[in-house]
Amino acid sequence: MRQEYVDIKAKMSRLKVGALQPKTVVRVGNHRIGGDTFTLIAGPCAVENLDQMHVITQAVKASGAHILRGGAYKPRTSPYNFQGLGEEGLELLKEMSLQYDIPVITELVDIQHLEKLALSADIIQIGSRNMQNYALLQALGQVERPIMLKRGIAATIEEFLLAAEYIINAGNPNVILCERGIRTYETVTRNTLDLNAVAILKQLTHLPIIVDPSHGTGVKEIMGPMAKAALACGADGIMLEVHHQPEKALSDGAQALIPTEFATIVKELSPLAHALQRKIHHV
Amino acid sequence: MRQEYVDIKAKMSRLKVGALQPKTVVRVGNHRIGGDTFTLIAGPCAVENLDQMHVITQAVKASGAHILRGGAYKPRTSPYNFQGLGEEGLELLKEMSLQYDIPVITELVDIQHLEKLALSADIIQIGSRNMQNYALLQALGQVERPIMLKRGIAATIEEFLLAAEYIINAGNPNVILCERGIRTYETVTRNTLDLNAVAILKQLTHLPIIVDPSHGTGVKEIMGPMAKAALACGADGIMLEVHHQPEKALSDGAQALIPTEFATIVKELSPLAHALQRKIHHV
Amino acid sequence: MRQEYVDIKAKMSRLKVGALQPKTVVRVGNHRIGGDTFTLIAGPCAVENLDQMHVITQAVKASGAHILRGGAYKPRTSPYNFQGLGEEGLELLKEMSLQYDIPVITELVDIQHLEKLALSADIIQIGSRNMQNYALLQALGQVERPIMLKRGIAATIEEFLLAAEYIINAGNPNVILCERGIRTYETVTRNTLDLNAVAILKQLTHLPIIVDPSHGTGVKEIMGPMAKAALACGADGIMLEVHHQPEKALSDGAQALIPTEFATIVKELSPLAHALQRKIHHV
Amino acid sequence: MRQEYVDIKAKMSRLKVGALQPKTVVRVGNHRIGGDTFTLIAGPCAVENLDQMHVITQAVKASGAHILRGGAYKPRTSPYNFQGLGEEGLELLKEMSLQYDIPVITELVDIQHLEKLALSADIIQIGSRNMQNYALLQALGQVERPIMLKRGIAATIEEFLLAAEYIINAGNPNVILCERGIRTYETVTRNTLDLNAVAILKQLTHLPIIVDPSHGTGVKEIMGPMAKAALACGADGIMLEVHHQPEKALSDGAQALIPTEFATIVKELSPLAHALQRKIHHV
Repeated sequence: MRQEYVDIKAKMSRLKVGALQPKTVVRVGNHRIGGDTFTLIAGPCAVENLDQMHVITQAVKASGAHILRGGAYKPRTSPYNFQGLGEEGLELLKEMSLQYDIPVITELVDIQHLEKLALSADIIQIGSRNMQNYALLQALGQVERPIMLKRGIAATIEEFLLAAEYIINAGNPNVILCERGIRTYETVTRNTLDLNAVAILKQLTHLPIIVDPSHGTGVKEIMGPMAKAALACGADGIMLEVHHQPEKALSDGAQALIPTEFATIVKELSPLAHALQRKIHHV
Repeated sequence: MRQEYVDIKAKMSRLKVGALQPKTVVRVGNHRIGGDTFTLIAGPCAVENLDQMHVITQAVKASGAHILRGGAYKPRTSPYNFQGLGEEGLELLKEMSLQYDIPVITELVDIQHLEKLALSADIIQIGSRNMQNYALLQALGQVERPIMLKRGIAATIEEFLLAAEYIINAGNPNVILCERGIRTYETVTRNTLDLNAVAILKQLTHLPIIVDPSHGTGVKEIMGPMAKAALACGADGIMLEVHHQPEKALSDGAQALIPTEFATIVKELSPLAHALQRKIHHV
Repeated sequence: MRQEYVDIKAKMSRLKVGALQPKTVVRVGNHRIGGDTFTLIAGPCAVENLDQMHVITQAVKASGAHILRGGAYKPRTSPYNFQGLGEEGLELLKEMSLQYDIPVITELVDIQHLEKLALSADIIQIGSRNMQNYALLQALGQVERPIMLKRGIAATIEEFLLAAEYIINAGNPNVILCERGIRTYETVTRNTLDLNAVAILKQLTHLPIIVDPSHGTGVKEIMGPMAKAALACGADGIMLEVHHQPEKALSDGAQALIPTEFATIVKELSPLAHALQRKIHHV
Repeated sequence: MRQEYVDIKAKMSRLKVGALQPKTVVRVGNHRIGGDTFTLIAGPCAVENLDQMHVITQAVKASGAHILRGGAYKPRTSPYNFQGLGEEGLELLKEMSLQYDIPVITELVDIQHLEKLALSADIIQIGSRNMQNYALLQALGQVERPIMLKRGIAATIEEFLLAAEYIINAGNPNVILCERGIRTYETVTRNTLDLNAVAILKQLTHLPIIVDPSHGTGVKEIMGPMAKAALACGADGIMLEVHHQPEKALSDGAQALIPTEFATIVKELSPLAHALQRKIHHV
């Protein structure tokens, strides 16, 4: 056995995130993330306006998405890029959630937004850039919402789990991990989706793990294959960016699927999920 | 669409490796690599002795392996490590091949070994360290054996395809690509198996692609999940290191599966292959 | 000329961080960071107690340090590691500053600590983990203290400059950049100190740049050579961790210099600074 | 002390490359590489024609270069790029060497070229792509020429030293190491020049170390600062690409200095070398 694996296995087993604890299944409305379910999260990168949200939400829900994603606060590399609609975005998400009966996930970038964000969001996403923002992680310990923690762009597996430990240790056990690609030298893809890490994490922790092929690849043409690979290696779900007009999207249009592409991917995942004894459709 | 992907797609389409050419299916005895077949290559890292080879070859053949692997010449980081049995190793491979009716793949490290190696090997493997040894690649153009070219440890997708182009352009069209993990900052795994690259390569080239989870992860506990992920993302086969006594292996014992573990992985791949309409068993 | 360099040069020249602006020289008490001065920042990783601070402050001041460093709030990978003395640490820093007449730099990890921290700190450090904590960066725009922004562990040069742009655009022009090593595959050193980036940044921005060989190497034996290299490639100063009892240090002891080692490095920098026409000593 | 450093220090000290051996100084004609000399190697990426070689050789010699570089056999990523003039290139190098009384270094890519190449070359360069071509390294053990071994693009410090060990162990003690940048995620520069590695290597081995800022940065604008940094951190010399018409160069024109730029860099290195007690000029 590889010594580095043996060592981290032993180390993590002594922590609250460790695999010796019972498997965590996170309830979100009637949906459960983890266990034998393979969760589908879909929606636009950013909430842009009411029409956009109706078209996309209706479409992804019809294709089988369990949870709607959409950014109201967008952490952008440049201060001059579109930073999200803010509270207006939160309200649009709430409206979609109620009208289409679908839970919502959105990103928190500032603890001061928490109170309002928690009124709209069923799951709070912490982005890669904040994975080691420990002040934020500790504040999330007191929040009564599940947290989806995205892996930092060059975070080791150990750092990722210890960031989750911060949240759990501060009082919130409902943490979902999200692998979203790491930074390597390759430029054809946006990042390198690290499925090794997903398979290792399934050994080291009881927390559910979602894979984000949109950020992990940045290339529409391989979303389908990588979604299947995520399912095959043991992930508990995927998160995909879907936009009805990618060429007009205010952020990340290049990697957004159109609704029919998303529908095709879900259809192709079905026989695979069946072969792997994972549930992908609502009963 | 991601511009970097569009650019490389256009560039590769003008080359002999490019996806506009008909899909390459490589015949090895009665077996075909590529097409609807999912190929299983298994065997020890290094050929060590006759007993070892009998035990392992019999076992992997019984579990469904199509091709036997085994190193006679081992490129080792230190000059003081076991460098392989050389010609004696080639003879043992030949003996196994005949007795168990299974094709053999082994690594070529020096063009001067070619003549003898070609008597034993059905497929010639070029290792990561030699992926850009252009003198060797060009010499392989004149060889009447298929070549399995492993990706360099930090090779870009473009460099990998251009290395294959060297071989094809020199006259040998039977090239099989092998993704075996890239070097990143993560130390829990030996390398980071790059399935993004596999999915991208399926878009860019007509060549078959084998995935090597043994070197790509170095961790036995995730060989099964990563073998499944390789199948799911479109790879044409996997190569796995199998040893009946990993703790006594002369190289890479820490990542070798024992024969029953290999058998289990093959069994678990079957329903997945069926769901994906890939053939994994001999008819 | 390399196209990627030409492109970023043009892009950055349109920003507030861009090299077309006059060179920024940051005043801290009587000291100036930037211009022809080569700044020496030294002190312990973490503030631990009064005795420790007296011994170290006295020593580094005597050797020529212009600024004292010391962490009161420590962002630690594990929630179970020493997290710093907090407000008590800030008070100890203030006491040192007054008694030894030396400005102080310390890290801010939570905007809620700002008011108290600003009473002790002459410069506010933002650590690597928070380089893209945009909520924090924007809040710093309103602060009347210079900010030293450390590069994220896998931040590109562009992302680093755009993070600085967030602070300047929010109203605070006194930003100092700090290169502290990037994450690569090499494990002998803690990180890979990226002096390429320092030389490029000197071309792209008017902001002063400090180099941190302590985190950038993690190896005491090469602190001296890398401090010299930082000076030679155009950096505006270095920051070094110094502890009188590294083996008892509560964090990062392995990379701390003892005071006599720090003194030796400063001595060896002098003729080099002279040859490069940089001022290293108080007049 | 950092454990990983302690471990490699102990491991390397048991090898022929280890620091316990006396410092190696390589004689090339009247010049010595290593010791208190700082060696300047300069010339074009590729030998193109007689005129080019006259102009460049005359210029770099006049500016103080000790050794002329120039590729006759070029290992190129694409088989369709200019591969060098081959034997004609070797003859041009020989002619320059005789006419301008300057030793020559050129790359060997195929052991079959050795006999002819050794007639022209005073030093044989092994490129990054062949750093782990062990068949080649072992053949070099029998060669009566010094070898300059370039670091592989993602080679660890340990792998680099063990590659040198292959050559020395095979019988050739005259090995010069060359740091030429490693592959990281940064795209502004061609590679990331790793001066950490240079400083570490000076601790671990008795072999001289040359730094190649041309490949290590790919950006002309920072050649000067990085050459100075190489000198300051303890390197034994630098190798720079110089071309009189970079825009017409058959390879790597974007990173080539024109002769006056090279002359300026040499001038700026002089006071630095003096301050560091390194000799840079012929006596």
